[in-house]
Amino acid sequence: MRRILIIGGCGFIGKNLSRVFAADGKYSVIVFDKPEAIRGAQRIPAVRYISGDFGVQKSIEAVFRKNKIDIVFHLVSTTVPAISDGFGMVYDIESNLVPTVRLLCLMEKYHVGKIVFASSGGTVYGLIPQARMSSGIAETFPTNPICSHGTVKLAIEKYIQLSSYLHGIEYLILRISNPYGEHHSSRVQGLINVILRNVLEGKPVTIWGDGRVVRDYLYVGDCVRVIKKLIDKGVVNDVLNVGSGIGHSVNDVLRTIESKLGRFTVVKRAARRIDVPKVILNVGKLRGLTGYTPIDLSHGINRTLKWIQSTRGVA
Amino acid sequence: MRRILIIGGCGFIGKNLSRVFAADGKYSVIVFDKPEAIRGAQRIPAVRYISGDFGVQKSIEAVFRKNKIDIVFHLVSTTVPAISDGFGMVYDIESNLVPTVRLLCLMEKYHVGKIVFASSGGTVYGLIPQARMSSGIAETFPTNPICSHGTVKLAIEKYIQLSSYLHGIEYLILRISNPYGEHHSSRVQGLINVILRNVLEGKPVTIWGDGRVVRDYLYVGDCVRVIKKLIDKGVVNDVLNVGSGIGHSVNDVLRTIESKLGRFTVVKRAARRIDVPKVILNVGKLRGLTGYTPIDLSHGINRTLKWIQSTRGVA
Repeated sequence: MRRILIIGGCGFIGKNLSRVFAADGKYSVIVFDKPEAIRGAQRIPAVRYISGDFGVQKSIEAVFRKNKIDIVFHLVSTTVPAISDGFGMVYDIESNLVPTVRLLCLMEKYHVGKIVFASSGGTVYGLIPQARMSSGIAETFPTNPICSHGTVKLAIEKYIQLSSYLHGIEYLILRISNPYGEHHSSRVQGLINVILRNVLEGKPVTIWGDGRVVRDYLYVGDCVRVIKKLIDKGVVNDVLNVGSGIGHSVNDVLRTIESKLGRFTVVKRAARRIDVPKVILNVGKLRGLTGYTPIDLSHGINRTLKWIQSTRGVA
Repeated sequence: MRRILIIGGCGFIGKNLSRVFAADGKYSVIVFDKPEAIRGAQRIPAVRYISGDFGVQKSIEAVFRKNKIDIVFHLVSTTVPAISDGFGMVYDIESNLVPTVRLLCLMEKYHVGKIVFASSGGTVYGLIPQARMSSGIAETFPTNPICSHGTVKLAIEKYIQLSSYLHGIEYLILRISNPYGEHHSSRVQGLINVILRNVLEGKPVTIWGDGRVVRDYLYVGDCVRVIKKLIDKGVVNDVLNVGSGIGHSVNDVLRTIESKLGRFTVVKRAARRIDVPKVILNVGKLRGLTGYTPIDLSHGINRTLKWIQSTRGVA
């Protein structure tokens, strides 16, 4: 049995990830999250839940002291890309970067050998010239984020690689694109899920800009299956894009949902400086390692819809 | 008159930089530094000194509230590359990155239009494959630091560029190599100055590794003259290597000093993981912008020696 700790395991990806690992039988799974997140989540019987505060060192240290862990999944993010004021940026650094560096120290101290970090495929690259986008954004492209969220994710990537260099900690950095699907509960992040819930509840839908912003939407079932495959195969010390490799505009998403649920009201707000116009990840490296094929947007939306309707969105 | 604020102006580069700007007559110069640094420094008559703590927001804010500033020089670094333990890394982030992000907020608030940041040519690039080094390390090379010092410098670069993108703040990021020369006072950082002082005082000289580590040593007089030229010319929104473009091994440095001062004792300690084997910056971009030619190592060392002997190293 390999012992995994999923920090932020009651978040969107965490809930899906803990399910696939717990279902396997070869992994024992501990989820670490805030008390209110654990209270609000549907518990998975095979999973142990530990509540604590990622920002408080002794809270994480207690987990390592009492449990032998083989792999840490770091899925925590206290901020969303939209934060752009300076004091929000300071909070971003203090509540994400600093605790991660402390986590890396503790991993060294307690001989935890491996970390998997959920970085951000949508924000670490920043503005990529259109001419270079023909086959998507590869992992080797320049990284010049235009929001604090992406800047902190990038700094965390660098500290993880530094820990690997200095102390031999193995890592897997996953630059995940825009996931959607089952077990999503945020009301502010995750375009497809937020739109579906609003439409089902008869509420208007808000978008920023003219709807031509392009994103690489990834069905969360594909996302966690491919992550599990990487772990099963023992892939380490790599930075990987995790996306579908296909771009859809916000207008594409609106049309696809309209074709399933009928017309709804769309409120357009001013475009935001922190949104890059286009993100399509090149997932050739991931495909080479795992051979995975993502499902298409329409099928992914069907599954998401079915889940929302069956649970009324209780994640 | 352009009003410049040099934060960390009583450090090694700061003392030289405040001298060249004050001597010009077209600039009014304020130096901001810790009380003990100002107390220990030789004052320049045309310069105003303000003591405070870069880590305390209201300390910097008071300067902007009371003085109209056109250009901020950010030369502060609370750490040296040798720090490699995890809790030192947290201090590095909290005492360098966080105050810099606050500084950028305050610049926006008080309409200060331009920042010049002293980044680190020796640490931001990390390990560059030998095959790519034939014409030195260019600004476009990958940045994968192998020490916290370089990781924080890189994160600061990204936040400065983000501020420029979001709020229009102009910037100049200078990736400075290893400076040596007049007005240096550290006993732990700056190989050439530290060796010269030790030899003159009859003390042994300590080096790490076998002496084959190569660095791009830059005479500080060249360093500050070329920075002033960039400012005079109004170069902005660029990342520039600032070095000599020439590599010398530690053994070269020892031999050059021996040829001037005679034999001395060298203590060799174990090589450090955080030291990259070779740094030679490609300074083609800087040369194209300023037309400067650096003086050679032997002449630079002569000038440094003369200064140490005339002042007994009081900076």
